[in-house]
Amino acid sequence: MNVKTVLILLVLALATVFALVCVLLTRGRAPSPCQQQPPARAEAEESRSRVFADLTAEELAQVVRYLQGHLGVPLTDASRAEPSDNCIASLDVQLPAKAEVLRFLDEGGARPPREALAVLYFGDQPEPNITEYVVGPLPTPAYHRDVTARKYGGKLPYHRRAVTGKEYEDINTLIRRELRKAPLFLAACCESDGTDLAILTTAPRGFKSGDRTSWFVLFHNVPGTGYYLSPVGLEVLVDHRDLQVSRWQLRQVFYNGRYFASVRHLEDAFVADSLEVVRIEKPRAETVLGSMRPRSPPGSPGPLPYEPQGPRYSVRDNHVTFQGWSVAFGMNPNTGPRLFDIRFRGERIVYELSLQEALALYGSNCPGGMSTRYMDGSFGIGRFSYELVRGVDCPYTATYVDRHYLAESDTPKTNQNSLCIFEHDAAIPLRRHFSDSQSLYYGGLRKNTLVIRAISTLINYDYIWDFMFHGSGAVEVRVHATGYISSSFLHGQGTDYGNKVGPHTLGSMHLHHIHYKVDLDVDGQLNSLETHDMGYKLAKDPWSMQNTMERLYLRRERLEKEDEAAFPLNGPMPRYLSFTSPRPNEWGHLRSYRIQITSFAGEHLPASSPMERSISWGRYQLAVTRRKEEEPTSTSIYNQNDPWTPTVAFADFINNETITNEDLVAWISVGFLHVPHAEDIPNTVTVGNGVGFFLRPYNYFNQDPSVDSPDSVYFSSEQEAGACRDNPLACLPHAASCTPNLPPFSYGGFLNLSLAPQPGQL
Amino acid sequence: MNVKTVLILLVLALATVFALVCVLLTRGRAPSPCQQQPPARAEAEESRSRVFADLTAEELAQVVRYLQGHLGVPLTDASRAEPSDNCIASLDVQLPAKAEVLRFLDEGGARPPREALAVLYFGDQPEPNITEYVVGPLPTPAYHRDVTARKYGGKLPYHRRAVTGKEYEDINTLIRRELRKAPLFLAACCESDGTDLAILTTAPRGFKSGDRTSWFVLFHNVPGTGYYLSPVGLEVLVDHRDLQVSRWQLRQVFYNGRYFASVRHLEDAFVADSLEVVRIEKPRAETVLGSMRPRSPPGSPGPLPYEPQGPRYSVRDNHVTFQGWSVAFGMNPNTGPRLFDIRFRGERIVYELSLQEALALYGSNCPGGMSTRYMDGSFGIGRFSYELVRGVDCPYTATYVDRHYLAESDTPKTNQNSLCIFEHDAAIPLRRHFSDSQSLYYGGLRKNTLVIRAISTLINYDYIWDFMFHGSGAVEVRVHATGYISSSFLHGQGTDYGNKVGPHTLGSMHLHHIHYKVDLDVDGQLNSLETHDMGYKLAKDPWSMQNTMERLYLRRERLEKEDEAAFPLNGPMPRYLSFTSPRPNEWGHLRSYRIQITSFAGEHLPASSPMERSISWGRYQLAVTRRKEEEPTSTSIYNQNDPWTPTVAFADFINNETITNEDLVAWISVGFLHVPHAEDIPNTVTVGNGVGFFLRPYNYFNQDPSVDSPDSVYFSSEQEAGACRDNPLACLPHAASCTPNLPPFSYGGFLNLSLAPQPGQL
Repeated sequence: MNVKTVLILLVLALATVFALVCVLLTRGRAPSPCQQQPPARAEAEESRSRVFADLTAEELAQVVRYLQGHLGVPLTDASRAEPSDNCIASLDVQLPAKAEVLRFLDEGGARPPREALAVLYFGDQPEPNITEYVVGPLPTPAYHRDVTARKYGGKLPYHRRAVTGKEYEDINTLIRRELRKAPLFLAACCESDGTDLAILTTAPRGFKSGDRTSWFVLFHNVPGTGYYLSPVGLEVLVDHRDLQVSRWQLRQVFYNGRYFASVRHLEDAFVADSLEVVRIEKPRAETVLGSMRPRSPPGSPGPLPYEPQGPRYSVRDNHVTFQGWSVAFGMNPNTGPRLFDIRFRGERIVYELSLQEALALYGSNCPGGMSTRYMDGSFGIGRFSYELVRGVDCPYTATYVDRHYLAESDTPKTNQNSLCIFEHDAAIPLRRHFSDSQSLYYGGLRKNTLVIRAISTLINYDYIWDFMFHGSGAVEVRVHATGYISSSFLHGQGTDYGNKVGPHTLGSMHLHHIHYKVDLDVDGQLNSLETHDMGYKLAKDPWSMQNTMERLYLRRERLEKEDEAAFPLNGPMPRYLSFTSPRPNEWGHLRSYRIQITSFAGEHLPASSPMERSISWGRYQLAVTRRKEEEPTSTSIYNQNDPWTPTVAFADFINNETITNEDLVAWISVGFLHVPHAEDIPNTVTVGNGVGFFLRPYNYFNQDPSVDSPDSVYFSSEQEAGACRDNPLACLPHAASCTPNLPPFSYGGFLNLSLAPQPGQL
Repeated sequence: MNVKTVLILLVLALATVFALVCVLLTRGRAPSPCQQQPPARAEAEESRSRVFADLTAEELAQVVRYLQGHLGVPLTDASRAEPSDNCIASLDVQLPAKAEVLRFLDEGGARPPREALAVLYFGDQPEPNITEYVVGPLPTPAYHRDVTARKYGGKLPYHRRAVTGKEYEDINTLIRRELRKAPLFLAACCESDGTDLAILTTAPRGFKSGDRTSWFVLFHNVPGTGYYLSPVGLEVLVDHRDLQVSRWQLRQVFYNGRYFASVRHLEDAFVADSLEVVRIEKPRAETVLGSMRPRSPPGSPGPLPYEPQGPRYSVRDNHVTFQGWSVAFGMNPNTGPRLFDIRFRGERIVYELSLQEALALYGSNCPGGMSTRYMDGSFGIGRFSYELVRGVDCPYTATYVDRHYLAESDTPKTNQNSLCIFEHDAAIPLRRHFSDSQSLYYGGLRKNTLVIRAISTLINYDYIWDFMFHGSGAVEVRVHATGYISSSFLHGQGTDYGNKVGPHTLGSMHLHHIHYKVDLDVDGQLNSLETHDMGYKLAKDPWSMQNTMERLYLRRERLEKEDEAAFPLNGPMPRYLSFTSPRPNEWGHLRSYRIQITSFAGEHLPASSPMERSISWGRYQLAVTRRKEEEPTSTSIYNQNDPWTPTVAFADFINNETITNEDLVAWISVGFLHVPHAEDIPNTVTVGNGVGFFLRPYNYFNQDPSVDSPDSVYFSSEQEAGACRDNPLACLPHAASCTPNLPPFSYGGFLNLSLAPQPGQL
């Protein structure tokens, strides 16, 4: 081989190297179809939305510092405060009045000052009380105003305050101390010395205003599993009304169907062998009822959402936009998720859409169960909205947002990743038609929905709060219940109150009733309420007068007064009910949004109950009232502990005022009767346990706004459906040909929590 | 440079080439985490399921050949047959009796012979009639039995037959011929000579048995858009009862609120200037009301489902399996989708779950609209289930299945890809709990659902039929309505019957009512019916007898008779209603499945209507009857054209027989009142327009079966949630890291269709 040959070979080899390198490089750099396309953002809207923003961690800290320095009384950190101390119970943003906000948003008015609402427990005052202050302006507070009298018409009695974690801790200590008086009984019934049982609160706490006497239910506690399913049959009634913890007393003991005046009496009965004891082994983690530990090894993953070019919605601060939708979102630490200024194509449809309350009302033949009517808002629907698990709670690729709150502490806390936002492919057309006649064509559109979700863990239960925004201009609100059921010890005629779901466990029946405020502003603030429904009338046939026909026709009605617009929970409702603007659409019909409710509500507590007024929102599946600044919420966090003198009684909002051409609010109740059954173990499933409502455009537009969607698909028999230029579906195999790149899994939800007691348990 | 150097360089270069080639090759072959993992299949079940299979194209052809050779009369192809001819109207599988099937499936009995049901129109007989034959055994028919008398108690009058495409063609010819008599009027009103108008049928067709007089509504026809929105105000009444087409007559003409004895009279009125003419321009494709052509260029694609390791369900022939579910599916050419032998974990829950009827009942002040009560089963819900568009109608990656049918023709037709099957990520947990107390852990499971879907285009409307199977053991059945609304010409007091949705278009109000048969077999064939509901009772507090409390309790009831189990459409329903087995679960409760209905039903046609018995299934939201072989369906395809003497009247099924420990069927009605509004243009959206029901396990299992799901997620604060070994979610970024590979888009749905008239239009 001569040099020339070798050189030629070398040159060829180098050329090959060059070519291969080129191939390698261009492979990596090939113009990808999958580049993230950041969606357009609306900075002006984002900035305006901050008028609704929750307090930031910094703002919370600033208000705490201000209060500590300016109230002129010593404040104990609520996590350590005794009932006889003063403390900051909670902070939240104080939203400006609607008129002020609208001047700012719509008329170029000044940005309203940013203020906080502070709830103070004044136990260390001559007349202990709850006081609410408005503190402002943020970020540097300079004033505080006591708004208690203005809001509630007087002082707020101290006994209406929520039970704090510290109070539960002290009750805990009392119960454990008392249980030491029944060592033989506890060993026999429960293989326990009393220190290892979990203790669950109930509410309300007595029979009349001022009472603070709560039943506590005892459970076997197996780490890693919901103790709620393992009652041992023992319940104790504690009077914790006195401001001096040392004066609290255990008033009654219940065991397996019998009542005793004290723990000592129970022990005596046991020793005297006059007690029927149900001996329950201490459950082991492997066999405990309700374990969620997987029993099969993981298999192949199911379908995942994949966004070839990234998310198509935009989230910034408290503001999200998606295909014409624009929403400001937030979280009230007590009442939970709240949305403001919901706009579609620039037009406001809803000023406020907010959760008000979640009621769980139980039946049982055990005292704790039979008296339980939890008003979850007073426990804290918002503050117990914990971190969401990506890939189960929301899609893996969703956007996760942190929330900050301050409650029962002087230090702000963060629920990181506790709101998720995503575009959901409902896997069904939003609309479609296939034409088999006259001309052959197909038109359709996928139902892709923007979802805003939070999940609140309220002791045993988990509520999934969804707010959905459709391409048709409809808003969908939905709540699903999951998590553990609450249970009672099964004894006697227990199955008159539910089903047996474990060896000694009664799945106790209950209602879930949920209340929402929907401040619709349809084409302006001033709306009226119209109903449309059907009827039949017997009429002669116009073309054959000897014959008759049952003719379907439309009944249109305007509801003039609040009383006409208050629809009892299980009563009849007109099939169509709409908020109407005074202005017509192109076809002459008043621009409207229709409210459509899906609910399986149970029966409301009879009005004869002395506590019924505290949940009187539950009388109505829908009530429409005039909007008033002084009727901001349908209930109060103070109703739980004094339901006999409700701080807010919704029934009072309905006083037959005129509701035509007014700023109106729709108050909507949804819920279901839950009779737990074997399949509620380990957790209630969401299938069939979802309720909610739609807000649907009804002659609001001139045609379905989804016609303008860039996702619209249309092709006729004269087009090449398989060609990308004719049909965007044909572009998908190319557009969706890059590798998903999921972020690593992480979860910090446990980090914020100590095992210090949370409300409702010890 | 000497040879040695050059050689060394060459060797280096070749080594580089080798290395680069290796890189390139291994890049392509890198061990992928995304290999398709074919799900386990159950071949024995697949084979057994064939007992329910629809007829194959070959079987259809064999039966046609057999009938042509063995009936002893000449048969004309139905696509050409005159009313005075004999023809094959349709074929379907004749399912064996349930007892026979169960002997085969459950007791090792012989496979029942395979048979077909043939519907023949005998117009060329001394007494024209409809005859039904059972033909068998397939694949080589050797016998046929006339089953008409046994099924219907006598002969089927010929006038009850459906209107065939050929009959519509002949009516078409008549109408066009008649319209030639009003050239001046047509030019003025509609810029038309009468030949370019679309003609839409209505039904029923008269006032009494034997009538066959139909109103036809005329529309401007713009290719590529639904003509249903463009009525010109003209409707004609045609008597097509006579078997001689030449004797058919146009009986009445309606125009813009007035009735005329003939087209000539209309023209005379126009010429005499005594007619109020609404001049409507012929719409152009670009501006026509209801166009679905996209108005924006396509944007980036939304989220797509991505199955990293392929589908997790298995479809073979007429059988699908998924995570414990096993279902046989099929399509009745008339009544639509039908499922059989629905099993979960090997146990049959439902023997038959099938659509029975879709009723659309209209109101209008135009004669066609006011008299329309379409019973879609008689048009053909199954045969008009056309090809689904991947990426809109179902997920792009769904599995698509062909269906074959024979109707109004001697040649089998195929609706390719007309059923889709997929696993849907509902983007919500099926169950979850986050524990913030006692111990910190999280457990949950995604809600992944197997969906079987078909979409039927019934003239203007598209019904989306979904059957869903959840990991909790629940079956969900849902129907959404979309497609074009039907409309009337707006005149006079038209808005008493709907809303104006276009310049001359009344979106006419109507009911959609849908009926299903659910033959539940809960833990065996013999079931009873139990209801659970709540009540309150005022009782003294056991621990404080001076106080009272409204106690929630459970009312359990067994329904003994059919009459007790027939629940009027808008009447009260017990909140829990279950099919129970005589056998208890581990906790002593009877194993049950609960029926839970979601519906917004309108009001049923008053029973005083002479046609009401033909749709008397609509009286009840739920009726439970004893299952009988001779009560296979709740209606008949012959009811539409003789609703005054219904061939099947569901009301007769309810005759107060005992329903304890019997084989029972639940008949379920769902539906809604639809008052079309501007946003129904171009198409009704599915948001808010879905109704259906759940079948949910209720003490059927000992706990929620989803605990065994391989998709379960659980981790505690003591585990490393980010580690794949502790938490399968943490494995996802790796498992889902391969490139989706979507098949090219294709659509053949237009290929099977000529532009020959389909039922209902010309």
